[in-house]
This record gives sequence, C-alpha cells and structure tokens, in this order.
Amino acid sequence: MPHDRDVQVHLLPDLAPPDRLAGGLAVVIDVLRSTTTMIHALASGCTAVRPCLEVEEARQLAGQMRVGRVLLGGERGGLPLPGFDLGNSPAEYTAKACCGTTLVLTTTNGTRACYRAAEAERVLIAGVVNYSAVCEQLRQDDRPIHLICAGTDGEIALEDTLLAGAFVDFLCEVSEVRLNDSARLAWDCFENHGQVLLGALQIGKGGMHLQRLGLAEDIQAAAQVDQFNLVPELRRDPLRIEVGAVGIVQSRWPKLK
Amino acid sequence: MPHDRDVQVHLLPDLAPPDRLAGGLAVVIDVLRSTTTMIHALASGCTAVRPCLEVEEARQLAGQMRVGRVLLGGERGGLPLPGFDLGNSPAEYTAKACCGTTLVLTTTNGTRACYRAAEAERVLIAGVVNYSAVCEQLRQDDRPIHLICAGTDGEIALEDTLLAGAFVDFLCEVSEVRLNDSARLAWDCFENHGQVLLGALQIGKGGMHLQRLGLAEDIQAAAQVDQFNLVPELRRDPLRIEVGAVGIVQSRWPKLK
Repeated sequence: MPHDRDVQVHLLPDLAPPDRLAGGLAVVIDVLRSTTTMIHALASGCTAVRPCLEVEEARQLAGQMRVGRVLLGGERGGLPLPGFDLGNSPAEYTAKACCGTTLVLTTTNGTRACYRAAEAERVLIAGVVNYSAVCEQLRQDDRPIHLICAGTDGEIALEDTLLAGAFVDFLCEVSEVRLNDSARLAWDCFENHGQVLLGALQIGKGGMHLQRLGLAEDIQAAAQVDQFNLVPELRRDPLRIEVGAVGIVQSRWPKLK
Repeated sequence: MPHDRDVQVHLLPDLAPPDRLAGGLAVVIDVLRSTTTMIHALASGCTAVRPCLEVEEARQLAGQMRVGRVLLGGERGGLPLPGFDLGNSPAEYTAKACCGTTLVLTTTNGTRACYRAAEAERVLIAGVVNYSAVCEQLRQDDRPIHLICAGTDGEIALEDTLLAGAFVDFLCEVSEVRLNDSARLAWDCFENHGQVLLGALQIGKGGMHLQRLGLAEDIQAAAQVDQFNLVPELRRDPLRIEVGAVGIVQSRWPKLK
C-alpha cells in the first residue's frame, strides 16, 4: 500500500523547522509581492534572480556584476530603495528592463522565505500567476511537500495562506495526503476566498498597505491566475532562482466570481 | 463615529507581540487540553489555578503549600508526571479531588500561553466548554481583543484556531470589528468546522496524539459546548487563575450536526 503523501503548510518561514524540510520539496509563496515579481522578471527575460537578505549585500553583489547585465531591485516597507533600478512592483519588470540581465532582489519577507526553503532538496517559487504550472510540478514529484508562506513583517498573511490552500486543494484531489493542521487552515481559507480572489488580496494587511502606498495595481497583477506557465526553481552555488519547468497541463483554479 | 474594535488572533503564543497586548483583553485558548482542564478544576471547586512553566517549579510551589489543600497536576508529552496527583485530563478534576484546593498546573503549551497573555490588561481563559460565557464577557468589555492560541508543541493547532474563529464569528455579529489576517483564517476554520466540532478535534495533530495515548475521552470532554457558565480570569501577585464572571445570556454556538 502506498504511503499517504505528507503535505505541510508553514504559515511563516520561522514556523518551518529546517530539519523537517530536508529531503522535501518546498514551495515559496509571497503573493504580495516578491514571488509574483520573480515570476514576472523571469518571464520577461531575466536569466536569474539572486535573492539577498540585506540591502547592503544586494548593493555589493550588484556592484560586482557587469553594468547593463544586472538589475538591482527590491523594497523596504513596500517602497523602492534609493539608488536601486526597480522596486518590487511586478509591472516594472518589463521585457525591456529585464532581457538578459540578472536580477539582484532584496525584499522584506520573500527573500527570507527563500533562504529558509533552501533547506529543502528542491525549491519552487509560486504565485497565483503560475498556479497551475506549479501544480503540475507537484503532481510529478513524489517528495514530501512543504508550502512555505512568507507572511508580512512576521505576521501570517491571508493571501499567502490562500494560495497555499489552493495547492492543498489540488493535492487532495490528485493523491492521498496527510495534512498538518496549518494545511487544513489554509484549505479552509481557499474554500472561503478562492472564488473571490481579488477581494481577498485587498482586505489582508499586505494588500491594505499597498493600497495606502498607491500600489493597488500590484494587487491586480498578483491576482492574474495562470498568467504564466513557468515555474522558477532555486539553484545553488551560488543561491539563485532560474526558470525550471515550463508548462500547464490543465488550469486548476476554480472559476472566479 | 465609534472606532471599529480591534480583534486579533495570534495562532501561537510567540506570534503575540507582548507590546501589542498592553492595554488589551486577552483570551487564552488551549482546547486540548489545559484551558479545558482549568475550567473543569475551577468548576469542581478548586479555589485557584497556579500555572507553572517548568515541572520542577511546579513541584517546589506545591511543596510549599499545606498538604490536603494543594493538587499538583499536569503533563509532558501528553502523559501524567511522576509524583503528580493528577494528569491533564479534564475528567480527573472531580469535585472530590478539587474541593477547596489550589491546583498547581504545568502543561506543555497552555501555561506558556498564559504567561504571554499576562502582558495584556485583562486575561480570560476559554474552552469550548465555556464558550458562550466568554462571549458575554467579550461583549461587555470594550478593550482591543487578543485571542491567543496555545498550539501544540510550537505548531499551530486546528482546535484552538477553530475556537478563536468562533469568538471572531460572535464579535463580528455584535460589533464593528477590524480583524487581522489570522483572525480571518480562524473565522474560515470555524465556518468550515464549527458544526462538526468533535470530528475537527479528532483530526488535528493534538487530537490524534491523544487518541494514540488512549485519551480519546478527553477529546469528547473538550467538545462539550457550554457545559459550564463560568469564566476563569487571570489575577496577579502571585499569577493565578480564579473564577471571574459567571453566567451565559444566550447560547452562541451554531447547532452541531
């Protein structure tokens, strides 16, 4: 008899114990906005994303790269950083800006989630914008799954939990699973908010903050289900994110109201 | 125009920032089992509960009290402790055992939640078993509310989140509220599991663990909606829990299936 597949949600990076991630498949989720931005950047022609925890580290790393082949992007408190090329708005990452460059990116919550997730054997980067493509990768893999939510400034975020719940919903459909309690909560969240996605992204703390900053368009961008069919994947030495698999077999998100 | 009332859920004690609790009303939730046990003990005639973080601290405190006037209770890993009078099963706390005694209690998760909650101005102790009585106190108070879930060994627990969500549901009905993202998640959990309460308590990690230990009856005991009409409240100098308000105006839990 095959084992049930372990599907664990960690509602914050700090709630994902590094030793439990070992040997597993981790999915990093920061819907507003860093994983959405990474997907946009790679889709627009960046060859890799180099996540940095600290602003100064990002500056130094970018400084070592060839001018014209590097983009320095990110935010603190949601706002662009002085001297950086771009902020953390997905729409800034156009083909013109991105083509052939390496993106050095530092964000408040998402890069931290990437570093924690790096304890896992394989790491994928997910947003609403590449949901079904990530589903396909989860289906093809057989490792235990860890869905790691970035949250907002150390607080659990509604939008990340919602997307984690969408993956739980998919996984429950395609295999026998063993869920942790947080996976059940995420599933509940998806059941109640999955069909009113944009509204859910707007009422959470992160979404409210973006609206106050005049960045409501970023929420719209983050809510575009299956806009892309690529799955960014973490590579090592040095730690970076590149396009991994590409392709959607079937759109998985329920119809939006 | 009156302000919306702040209602925040903290899905683990460590996720409740002490400085934010100041001036607020905190509700400690550890359905399986410590807050349920505290309510049973006080209803059965204990005059106070003295929560202790460490086993040795509990032993010493009990050792200083008059023989026959103290009960030493608690668990580690769900199991009773050597030399202790009682474990952490609500049904052990009978009138015969409790009458006129002080309960010195140390548990893995619940006592920790009490200490974090003590940063708030007023602290209530809640279980499913005194749900509507706690609702009545929340309605009468006007401080910002913090619902603090104990969780299970550092992990978010379904049953605690469910009860927190039941309070959110009540508070949304009786006043204008401002919810944090975790409060929305808890509310989702309550909406999906509130009518199948016993089943929800059985599928969570804590409930599964109790069943493996042969303590399934404790889950039944924890699921008795409104069995009691008393609200334990934290007092200080020394830190202890005593019967605060008593009384249910109206049963608030939705009909169980």
